[in-house]
Amino acid sequence: MTTSVSPYDGRERGEVADSTPDEVADAVRRAAAAAAQVALTDPAVRRDWLDAVATTLEQHSDELVALADEETALGETRLTGEVARTAGQLRFYADVAREGSYLGVAIDRPTPTAPRLVRVNEPLGPVAVFGASNFPFAFSVLGNDTASALAAGCPVVVKAHPAHVRLSHRLAELATKALAEAGAPEGTFALVSGHQAGVDLVTAEEIAAVAFTGSQQGGLALWRLANERAHVVPVFAEMGTVNPVVVTPAAASRLPEAAAGFVGSFTLGHGQFCTKPGLLLAPAGHDAARLVADALTAAAPAPVMLTAPIAKAVAVGVEDLVHAGATVVGEVPAGTEGFAAPAVVLAARADALVPGSRLLEECFGAVALVVEYDGTDELRRVLDVLQGSLAGTLIAASEHPAEDPDAPWLVRTLAGQVGRVTVGDWPTGVAYTWAQQHGGPWPATSAPAATSVGAAALDRFVRPVAYQSVPDAWVPPAGQDANPWGVPRRVDGVRS
Amino acid sequence: MTTSVSPYDGRERGEVADSTPDEVADAVRRAAAAAAQVALTDPAVRRDWLDAVATTLEQHSDELVALADEETALGETRLTGEVARTAGQLRFYADVAREGSYLGVAIDRPTPTAPRLVRVNEPLGPVAVFGASNFPFAFSVLGNDTASALAAGCPVVVKAHPAHVRLSHRLAELATKALAEAGAPEGTFALVSGHQAGVDLVTAEEIAAVAFTGSQQGGLALWRLANERAHVVPVFAEMGTVNPVVVTPAAASRLPEAAAGFVGSFTLGHGQFCTKPGLLLAPAGHDAARLVADALTAAAPAPVMLTAPIAKAVAVGVEDLVHAGATVVGEVPAGTEGFAAPAVVLAARADALVPGSRLLEECFGAVALVVEYDGTDELRRVLDVLQGSLAGTLIAASEHPAEDPDAPWLVRTLAGQVGRVTVGDWPTGVAYTWAQQHGGPWPATSAPAATSVGAAALDRFVRPVAYQSVPDAWVPPAGQDANPWGVPRRVDGVRS
Repeated sequence: MTTSVSPYDGRERGEVADSTPDEVADAVRRAAAAAAQVALTDPAVRRDWLDAVATTLEQHSDELVALADEETALGETRLTGEVARTAGQLRFYADVAREGSYLGVAIDRPTPTAPRLVRVNEPLGPVAVFGASNFPFAFSVLGNDTASALAAGCPVVVKAHPAHVRLSHRLAELATKALAEAGAPEGTFALVSGHQAGVDLVTAEEIAAVAFTGSQQGGLALWRLANERAHVVPVFAEMGTVNPVVVTPAAASRLPEAAAGFVGSFTLGHGQFCTKPGLLLAPAGHDAARLVADALTAAAPAPVMLTAPIAKAVAVGVEDLVHAGATVVGEVPAGTEGFAAPAVVLAARADALVPGSRLLEECFGAVALVVEYDGTDELRRVLDVLQGSLAGTLIAASEHPAEDPDAPWLVRTLAGQVGRVTVGDWPTGVAYTWAQQHGGPWPATSAPAATSVGAAALDRFVRPVAYQSVPDAWVPPAGQDANPWGVPRRVDGVRS
Repeated sequence: MTTSVSPYDGRERGEVADSTPDEVADAVRRAAAAAAQVALTDPAVRRDWLDAVATTLEQHSDELVALADEETALGETRLTGEVARTAGQLRFYADVAREGSYLGVAIDRPTPTAPRLVRVNEPLGPVAVFGASNFPFAFSVLGNDTASALAAGCPVVVKAHPAHVRLSHRLAELATKALAEAGAPEGTFALVSGHQAGVDLVTAEEIAAVAFTGSQQGGLALWRLANERAHVVPVFAEMGTVNPVVVTPAAASRLPEAAAGFVGSFTLGHGQFCTKPGLLLAPAGHDAARLVADALTAAAPAPVMLTAPIAKAVAVGVEDLVHAGATVVGEVPAGTEGFAAPAVVLAARADALVPGSRLLEECFGAVALVVEYDGTDELRRVLDVLQGSLAGTLIAASEHPAEDPDAPWLVRTLAGQVGRVTVGDWPTGVAYTWAQQHGGPWPATSAPAATSVGAAALDRFVRPVAYQSVPDAWVPPAGQDANPWGVPRRVDGVRS
């Protein structure tokens, strides 16, 4: 049984039965039975399926936002925007599929020394999706992972997140109905609940891939579990990271403005973003920590966390950072209702940032660390010990390269450590577009070349198959001579 | 110390010192130091580097073939062809890099709701390459993995294969000289020797990815080792598989011809191909095992294996297959000189093919299993228990779909289990072209979407980075507005 609790007051608001092992096995079996039909459906038709899901989300927005707010305390404004974004994502991934580049079709005509080869990316099969607590719509039941997997032609079985379990079930109910009415085969989508159901899902023989958004602890546990299967399957775990911000020496005068922006970014959504900037590296001698502390006091956030354990972890995390050598320099105390948590700015000396230190790890919540560096040699040393992150931000003197001599090497250094480099732009928002990359070096993601947001998100759920000397009629539609799906192709190495 | 032994007579022909831990650390450190410069070099310039390596291979072909034959007993004809192919591969991957699609450049111009994003695939950094014993040129020191990693902009450190250790060192010597003369930075390429050197390489902090070709045992050991690193890195292990061949009921009359082709394919290179077809599934009642046994006797191969352990493993493998329920139906006994091994055809009943059976695993060498199926229900059941393979072959009645009712579902079934489906064409050869896929579901490869041959081989060694609101001059050349490298790009979702 999973209990639904409101973070506003900590009170129970209902409960949902956990799925039995038989129910999980049944969901997975039905997904596997639907896989071939989903895979061979023209992406333009799957576009209609996803559009139907998007439309039902929009039609039920008020009801869904109210339910989500009761379970997450993220507020009506933010949640209303998130529903609209989630509907947009569903249509975006479907459009990417319809465009067809994700199919990677390549045709080599036969030569005297090489046979005819047709290469087509094919859907992997049923995908298990583990959504995040912090985005109950955009990264959950019908979020980026589900939308991109369905768009790529894979059935999806979602594990409901316990932090919004009633919302998860309502979303699944709406999606199942919309998909059926749009003509998707039974088994295309299902939802299961409960911790054991998640374990059963990852170890089910029929599951071909796992997508996860959440903590390092949770993501790595699933990754290890999948690696112990007889038939190992890929796990695409996108996990929380530190997301460093560097203010260059030449940008010291921009610190007051940067401090305010930094506070706005690390307290957004109560600091519960995987792209939260958790570390500000500022040139010494400009009182950066004080500026950030003052900006925090001025902003006066009142964080209410998603769950009781998350709220408790904020306080524990601050204690751990202090134990690792940091000092609290600014704090907005926690409120008294529900899962309230403090917002905290800490400072640490650069030489405390050494491999293995807690200071190099994420602290979920509205908590950030400010570190002053004394010269670029020290800055280089500090950057060198950082773990991989989803995003890294540079605050440079200006956009004119010649005016900030450190910006070019800093951009290159950050590019080696993160999946997205932003300059003068906060990393918290993640646009769903063609050029997006939301994933980075270990341990930001378990598959460093994968993204969970943007057009390339579909690539996680396909696998190329080459057809050698196979008669045209037996090649999948995307690779047939007549090109019935109208997809871009490369013929003898030349793009069409 | 690694001893070089000739398979022809089993006698020692010299020895090579193993690399010390310091030598491995030094090679890796120099690779890491070169990484940024290699990455930022225009692929058209890297093309010149790889061309220089190809040219030196061609110029030293006679010497290299003689040395390789002494260490591998693969014969001058085959090895001369393999040197030419390897030179061709080096130029092919360089051309793929120069074409630029592998960089995956996408540019989203800013909108009122989304920032400017530029996405570029960037080289991962130093790659550790573990070559195969069975292709001393094409899948070894300067083979597909090394060529595609260098083409993609990654320095390479190769672990020498003990089965051709003197050749490995000579190849490294030639390549190092050619790269230096062509202007590649010091550290772009290195070779290390010895078992411990391989372990040190995979666990070295600076190594960003591992590419391996060889046995399941070896590949999975490296995969586990890399998964235990603090900073886990991807392992692209391409491993030996069973590569099933299915003769449809309607193609029963083609069995005599198929039997001869099957023997030619599974004895090629003394049965030491990862694409060796190891299992023939034939309709019952046509004496398929007898036809294959007769074809084997007529072909009268005289296998000489690469190493003493491999030769011994052939005999052990045959014993294991017999123990698992198979019967020897044809055999050409082993010769008496060097690492000679028998060529063997076995038969088993379809109901002996159950999960976990040794009959479902590869037996390296000129050994194959024939299984008769009684109707398509039994065929479906057998196919369902097969492990993932690199390739799967269908022998159909004809190329006219209507004339072989089982071909369409069999092509689809095989496509779900392998990386390459061939129809009426043996799987042993693997062309290096744009549409090739040499990799398949677990346990054929540790990364089921990756290929170690063909244009997409480069994709293993890059990782996308998105540049958000980054001034043009600080974006890597491939993503800059002026497009100095002249690469294909997608702007606002539209391919150019």
